[in-house]
Amino acid sequence: MSKVDLNCDLGESFGNYKLGLDEEVLPFISSANVACGFHASDPLVMSKTVALAKAAGVRVGAHPGYPDLVGFGRRNLNASPAEVKAMVQYQVGALMAFCQAQGVELQHVKPHGAMYNMAAKDIKLAMAICEGIYEVNPKLILLGLAGSQLIKAAEAIGLPYANEVFADRAYEEDGSLVARTKPGAMITDEDEAIQRVINMVKNKTVTAITGKEVPLVADSICLHGDGPKAVIFAQKISAALKNEGIEIASLAEVVSSR
Amino acid sequence: MSKVDLNCDLGESFGNYKLGLDEEVLPFISSANVACGFHASDPLVMSKTVALAKAAGVRVGAHPGYPDLVGFGRRNLNASPAEVKAMVQYQVGALMAFCQAQGVELQHVKPHGAMYNMAAKDIKLAMAICEGIYEVNPKLILLGLAGSQLIKAAEAIGLPYANEVFADRAYEEDGSLVARTKPGAMITDEDEAIQRVINMVKNKTVTAITGKEVPLVADSICLHGDGPKAVIFAQKISAALKNEGIEIASLAEVVSSR
Amino acid sequence: MSKVDLNCDLGESFGNYKLGLDEEVLPFISSANVACGFHASDPLVMSKTVALAKAAGVRVGAHPGYPDLVGFGRRNLNASPAEVKAMVQYQVGALMAFCQAQGVELQHVKPHGAMYNMAAKDIKLAMAICEGIYEVNPKLILLGLAGSQLIKAAEAIGLPYANEVFADRAYEEDGSLVARTKPGAMITDEDEAIQRVINMVKNKTVTAITGKEVPLVADSICLHGDGPKAVIFAQKISAALKNEGIEIASLAEVVSSR
Amino acid sequence: MSKVDLNCDLGESFGNYKLGLDEEVLPFISSANVACGFHASDPLVMSKTVALAKAAGVRVGAHPGYPDLVGFGRRNLNASPAEVKAMVQYQVGALMAFCQAQGVELQHVKPHGAMYNMAAKDIKLAMAICEGIYEVNPKLILLGLAGSQLIKAAEAIGLPYANEVFADRAYEEDGSLVARTKPGAMITDEDEAIQRVINMVKNKTVTAITGKEVPLVADSICLHGDGPKAVIFAQKISAALKNEGIEIASLAEVVSSR
Repeated sequence: MSKVDLNCDLGESFGNYKLGLDEEVLPFISSANVACGFHASDPLVMSKTVALAKAAGVRVGAHPGYPDLVGFGRRNLNASPAEVKAMVQYQVGALMAFCQAQGVELQHVKPHGAMYNMAAKDIKLAMAICEGIYEVNPKLILLGLAGSQLIKAAEAIGLPYANEVFADRAYEEDGSLVARTKPGAMITDEDEAIQRVINMVKNKTVTAITGKEVPLVADSICLHGDGPKAVIFAQKISAALKNEGIEIASLAEVVSSR
Repeated sequence: MSKVDLNCDLGESFGNYKLGLDEEVLPFISSANVACGFHASDPLVMSKTVALAKAAGVRVGAHPGYPDLVGFGRRNLNASPAEVKAMVQYQVGALMAFCQAQGVELQHVKPHGAMYNMAAKDIKLAMAICEGIYEVNPKLILLGLAGSQLIKAAEAIGLPYANEVFADRAYEEDGSLVARTKPGAMITDEDEAIQRVINMVKNKTVTAITGKEVPLVADSICLHGDGPKAVIFAQKISAALKNEGIEIASLAEVVSSR
Repeated sequence: MSKVDLNCDLGESFGNYKLGLDEEVLPFISSANVACGFHASDPLVMSKTVALAKAAGVRVGAHPGYPDLVGFGRRNLNASPAEVKAMVQYQVGALMAFCQAQGVELQHVKPHGAMYNMAAKDIKLAMAICEGIYEVNPKLILLGLAGSQLIKAAEAIGLPYANEVFADRAYEEDGSLVARTKPGAMITDEDEAIQRVINMVKNKTVTAITGKEVPLVADSICLHGDGPKAVIFAQKISAALKNEGIEIASLAEVVSSR
Repeated sequence: MSKVDLNCDLGESFGNYKLGLDEEVLPFISSANVACGFHASDPLVMSKTVALAKAAGVRVGAHPGYPDLVGFGRRNLNASPAEVKAMVQYQVGALMAFCQAQGVELQHVKPHGAMYNMAAKDIKLAMAICEGIYEVNPKLILLGLAGSQLIKAAEAIGLPYANEVFADRAYEEDGSLVARTKPGAMITDEDEAIQRVINMVKNKTVTAITGKEVPLVADSICLHGDGPKAVIFAQKISAALKNEGIEIASLAEVVSSR
């Protein structure tokens, strides 16, 4: 039976600022990417988010980002590979403490925002991130853009990895995401998005924006929890996958059964 | 044979800002309190400091502080016990990552500055800190002001602890430090300071500012590495202790031989 | 005719985080306290908030706070008077730039959260804040707790000032607020709250929690914009005041007509 | 008589961290670029730096940077022009407050580090910065890399501007700086550096790295105060310029006499 992980960014609130419908989306996902205080979150929010995920039976991953709260980690920052490696280790460790305190095993690491996008294309950055994770714990799973430099770096280093795909994004023939600025970059029709995902999981291919069917490995699907519509879509895609006989399983299970 | 640990705050540089003579003081100490990015340091500095301590054979501890870079963690902050517990876990975890990455075992946790001073007198805060450490790893040693609420909290929780004493500070009869604002609070004569420390270690007492001899347990002596004079004093006190037949040993050894 | 100012904290969003119903509450207030980036807000939010207030014909004031984003400036911080003076000048200047850029005259300064509360009771802190404001622009109006040390400091220095009162808080006989931890501290009945405010404005007295009628000057009433209920109350109290023949006027008008 | 301004970055200390020999370099410069708290400095340091410059008779300018303390504002950040405009206004305003408090007229604005370098090549960013300054005070002088997009943007907007040159850097034929990674990028011989600057000021040309003599306007020379060697060079170049009959004058004087 096919298996796929459903992941979502959680724990993005910060102090007095609330963000995301964490409790509402948790029932529909299998892995949570927990913000680590650099682009979002704070120690108390991290502690609570690990508790929420644990209670929901959802596996926990670290979601390290650039130190840019005001930019939510979405602005490219020209940090050196050594700096990025250190900031990843720092954030992974910080989350690890909350996991250890609550008897939760840290499952994976997914770089956030600009760090994720930059490392998807920059092998030096990708290697720095994967080395950083590997040194801290070589069993952690790297979650990165399917087929990207992040995945290649993890493979080269011997770090377990998982390919992430997006239901709402169009793909180029080389498996990269169509830039948001181009027409057709976003898949706005929900049924089409779900159909595309089912095809990715079952057939390991996607129809590129050019119309060509290209290979794409889908270990995990990125969902969102930032609004009621996103939560409803999470529920919908979860049901549709099960209906197709696809099992929703944690990243660890997907990777180990590969 | 008597044993005592010599500890020093290390890794307090930050980005472009250099602070402390870390490499110069390392030969004379047995335990390093490594800043964790809240009151000083950054991920790259933390990584380098763990490497320096490892190379020097000095044990590593976390030195968590209030999130107050501009105030260097020295300003009292009215954070709740729950907030302080979470910020301690966060910082301990962050340093733990660099230790794991470099095959170093984290030995202890010493709260920094205002957090150290406030928790020395506030049992709720002290309990929050010790619970936070215990949950992450119950084998970590709490390093706190000798006889303070921090020590009492660690004892109550079952967390290993070590009593810290100061060579350059006068003591009240109850074993607390004489407030810096009072005359005679600082022991400025180096030889007197060293003599006092030897007395603390050998006889487990100190002459209070009132002249009365009062009990005081000295598991570890706080040294400084923030200037050439401080480094010379570290060398001097280290030599004097050895000369008296007192072994300089890591916190872990001192605690386990107690 | 009696005049009173209605003030509200605005511009508390931060980066990706939205907070407050600024546009909804603006029609009912006469003065806006604009956050300055230390406890909330960022440069872009400040620029937009000044524009919103200008468009609504609402006067603008600076709302400086402690450098504590994660604590929203609500945690007491033991900063020195010199530090607080400098951080007030910094924040007032920052907002002044956006005012100058948009042809808006800065009207007042209201310290935020813990800084407001600490300075209400600490004359040294209050003097530092008022001196800081006076040096930057001696025509700025200090908005502080009615009858507090902040008001006394402004008076001593020759800085214009305005007494702020709270519709939803009980008062002690000395004019200070009843601590939130005491029973009866909050006035939860909206009609009673409004009636109390009308009495404050018209008769310059308030019924203390002891039942005694005590003097209280009400130059400005603190409203909230952090939820639909708060906005409805703002509308309600605004209407009730007008109905009683009390004019809603900016701080500058209230102070100059005094 | 030829006039040239000597500028230096000042006030880069931060909290407990000291940086730069501000007092030592002040006697040799005519304009100070004062850090504004985003890449370096804090409110107290800013206040003291304005006082130091005032006492030395040195004109004061704002030195706004990216919000990146740990990177000292030297890392490229992909902030939008609107964000950069707002962060410039914020920082200029903050410094303006300290100037007003001390009766000092703000003279100029020089973007710092990565912001300076990015805006030198990106007209959109340069326009955003110059618009931001112009809106706050159209009399402020923009100090930017000679002949760069920053200068062009200021010219287009009607903002006064001054061309900055570097004594220790080689130039390309188009007047841009030779990248530091290229051989010959740095002029390490002090006498050669001084000779080149004298030539720039007197003849408005520079010998490019190719050997070709190309036009270059030198309104201000960038000096450093970050070490004893830098201070000695500042003294040396100041003396050499005077010896050649070149007057050291503030940016305002240089610009107004042009």
